[in-house]
Amino acid sequence: MSKNLTTRSEDYSKWYNELVVKADLAENSGVRGCMVIKPYGYAIWEKLQGELDHRFKETGHSNAYFPLFVPKSLFEAEEKNAEGFAKECAIVTHYRLKNDPDNPGKLMVDPDAKLEEELIVRPTSEAIIWSTYKGWIQSYRDLPILINQWANVVRWEMRTRLFLRTAEFLWQEGHTAHATKAEAIAEAKQMQDVYVDVVENIMAIPVVKGYKTETERFAGADDTYTIEALMQDGKALQAGTSHFLGQNFAKAFDVKFTNKEGKQEYVWATSWGVSTRLMGALIMTHSDDNGLVLPPKLAPIQVVIVPIYKNEEQLQQIGNKADELMAEFKKKGISVKYDERDTQKPGFKFAEWELKGVPVRIAIGPKDLENGTFEVARRDLLSKEVVAETDVIDYIENLLNEIQENLFTKAISHRAEHTTEVNSFEEFKEVLETKGGFLLAHWDGTPETEEKIKDLTKATIRCIPMDQPDEEGVCVLTGKPSTKRVLFAKAY
Amino acid sequence: MSKNLTTRSEDYSKWYNELVVKADLAENSGVRGCMVIKPYGYAIWEKLQGELDHRFKETGHSNAYFPLFVPKSLFEAEEKNAEGFAKECAIVTHYRLKNDPDNPGKLMVDPDAKLEEELIVRPTSEAIIWSTYKGWIQSYRDLPILINQWANVVRWEMRTRLFLRTAEFLWQEGHTAHATKAEAIAEAKQMQDVYVDVVENIMAIPVVKGYKTETERFAGADDTYTIEALMQDGKALQAGTSHFLGQNFAKAFDVKFTNKEGKQEYVWATSWGVSTRLMGALIMTHSDDNGLVLPPKLAPIQVVIVPIYKNEEQLQQIGNKADELMAEFKKKGISVKYDERDTQKPGFKFAEWELKGVPVRIAIGPKDLENGTFEVARRDLLSKEVVAETDVIDYIENLLNEIQENLFTKAISHRAEHTTEVNSFEEFKEVLETKGGFLLAHWDGTPETEEKIKDLTKATIRCIPMDQPDEEGVCVLTGKPSTKRVLFAKAY
Repeated sequence: MSKNLTTRSEDYSKWYNELVVKADLAENSGVRGCMVIKPYGYAIWEKLQGELDHRFKETGHSNAYFPLFVPKSLFEAEEKNAEGFAKECAIVTHYRLKNDPDNPGKLMVDPDAKLEEELIVRPTSEAIIWSTYKGWIQSYRDLPILINQWANVVRWEMRTRLFLRTAEFLWQEGHTAHATKAEAIAEAKQMQDVYVDVVENIMAIPVVKGYKTETERFAGADDTYTIEALMQDGKALQAGTSHFLGQNFAKAFDVKFTNKEGKQEYVWATSWGVSTRLMGALIMTHSDDNGLVLPPKLAPIQVVIVPIYKNEEQLQQIGNKADELMAEFKKKGISVKYDERDTQKPGFKFAEWELKGVPVRIAIGPKDLENGTFEVARRDLLSKEVVAETDVIDYIENLLNEIQENLFTKAISHRAEHTTEVNSFEEFKEVLETKGGFLLAHWDGTPETEEKIKDLTKATIRCIPMDQPDEEGVCVLTGKPSTKRVLFAKAY
Repeated sequence: MSKNLTTRSEDYSKWYNELVVKADLAENSGVRGCMVIKPYGYAIWEKLQGELDHRFKETGHSNAYFPLFVPKSLFEAEEKNAEGFAKECAIVTHYRLKNDPDNPGKLMVDPDAKLEEELIVRPTSEAIIWSTYKGWIQSYRDLPILINQWANVVRWEMRTRLFLRTAEFLWQEGHTAHATKAEAIAEAKQMQDVYVDVVENIMAIPVVKGYKTETERFAGADDTYTIEALMQDGKALQAGTSHFLGQNFAKAFDVKFTNKEGKQEYVWATSWGVSTRLMGALIMTHSDDNGLVLPPKLAPIQVVIVPIYKNEEQLQQIGNKADELMAEFKKKGISVKYDERDTQKPGFKFAEWELKGVPVRIAIGPKDLENGTFEVARRDLLSKEVVAETDVIDYIENLLNEIQENLFTKAISHRAEHTTEVNSFEEFKEVLETKGGFLLAHWDGTPETEEKIKDLTKATIRCIPMDQPDEEGVCVLTGKPSTKRVLFAKAY
């Protein structure tokens, strides 16, 4: 496995694209903008799914499944939502192919099989789900409805990048229905916190919790709560959003319930989602010029054992020792792989597992067997230690925790170094161009100013941070008064 | 919960449709032929997925994800496969909506956003996957590839039924690539056995293992291995198929590898799948006129506890006892629900949990607390026992196993009673009309005879059973010689 990855300093974007492919995470497919998620990438996604799903269920949600297609008439019912997605919709218009009379062996769309009503491939499922909830909700007794769906969605993007922006992607979308506004807001905030928990404690990516501005809000939402992460190259990535949808979808689909007082009211809604985009965030937070770096809690393989041998007898002895170790790791719930391929040299294997981000590598040679020691390498620091056989299991159990913590701490430091309070538009532009990262700046609260700053600098308001203290100040662009700094950045 | 289900003897098909909806498993959606899988139904599907996924991984497979769309040119590459699915394809032709100038607030397909090449919504993924495998396979070292995908697929069916035949359904599709024919055949047979294991030991549905005839084979396969189940109404249901695809897809997509001798060869392939259709098989194997009956191994709720009380104090005492019980069940890994709703009477709750197929119900009243006993009801036999509190956990643990076994035994008996050896065409027709079920009959091996029998009786050859002994005989239709009986039935 020769690495020859482009380095991050050479070309960050190229480094990313190469890494995704070379670490066997994903690749472009023969379908414009759609990716193939390869087994190693999918295994990481499955671990992430497990962590999320478990928390969704603990907070009272059930999974369900709604149709892939949305009839156009349902799709356009909530106008803002429809408008927000109309320009990126894949549309099914026909339901049959036939033999092409002019091209033997080829097929053509059968013009006689045109649908009466076109079907939109879901870009998000509010419309189809709220048209369904209408049949489920009559009384306050039917509320709340707390449902999540794991699904594929399609948004026809013109410029795509593996994981970050693909025409089809995988995600989960929660859709809940409530009797009161307060309950819906609490739900949306709770799910934002679930995302914070998973992204920080499992993915080791620190995030800023905040509100989206009206401009950046989800189409059809009254409020969008977001978590924003900072990538190594100083650009922001929206890692998850949770929307308070007010009564917008209830009104669009006429979903009312009889409250305890016997009166009819519109139902309150939330929706919330994270997607395979998180894989991009994972890569761009921790990885280095040698390849992927995975937090142990998401690594499909946490420990790899590589034998160093000159002959069959040595391999046999090392194999026996590896079996012992693997049995011990299994007991601790640590996933381990013994790489006994005879087609590759140890150096190749080292490089390959580094590229694939396996957190810990153990090398065992004949000398180690003699001395009762192993060479243990950690991926995050690329450092090695010789560890006594008797201690190795405990050592590695601790090491995995240490790596998990170290990655988070390192990301926190990087973010701290790349978060700057700026107080003038000159400073804003200079910091953005030279250093990048998060800019905390005063803003006058108007969409016009927000748009002008975006036009002038390409930076957008990532969020109005929830934890940012109130502070008197003046807008960096207009000089108008402001009471709180907001978070600007260029974004993925 | 009033049951008023249509009974099976009145109208089996109506009973089924009502049951699926009333037991909260699934419902029709606003999209033609597409269903909504409701949380309770989805929870059963998730348990089934878990059982399958675990076995796929144990047999060396990894999950991955391939695009939803298949460009028409790839779709038509394997001609037989394309021909088999061409008539039921949803086709994406456009990628954008725009405002309809004639209808303010409405959208229309933007004629300027027509795709150069149409995209087929996958009815199955051989084409997209083999066009991808081409890039992954150069040498024998790259083989085997053992991949599974959990996905939605679309087959535009004209007549749909919840779970049994829907335009969109959920499934898993395994796609493997091998260096030799023997290895590919062994893989396809192994996966057939995995299906037998799950369907018989988890779903408690007995199946017949067999080969499909050429007529009934998967389009593009050299051989299809199937498992066939018999429903209560005497119709067969194909519960899972595993295909030996020969080199058909390798040839269509030009996928060759260099073998150990340095020669180029086409790769050998298999694919195998089961779908949400299995939910239909589950329902039609075990359920009764009171509703769903679930094998304990698939029941999202294995035990429900219903309190019988006249006042708050009693409810409090029963609640304490229920908490104790639930803690004990949890330790045993038994899933339990305490139904303390104060909006419904016990009788309603009994009927509701019966309808939903919960295997065991415990009723606790004040008398039970005094006597140290509980009333334990089993769903499969609709019988009750009074059980001493001290024994109840062990009793129920055993009972769950007993119910699981009883359901399988019962289904085996039903199948035995409805499997008939017939030796003339008169007998064939009579048994089919009066008793239904599986017919073991001699057939001359020709597609012509197979088709004629189908035209005359609507019965098809479900499979050529693998375990059926060789036996000299003559075809029931033509009188030509035959060496083995095959399995006929009317089928879902």
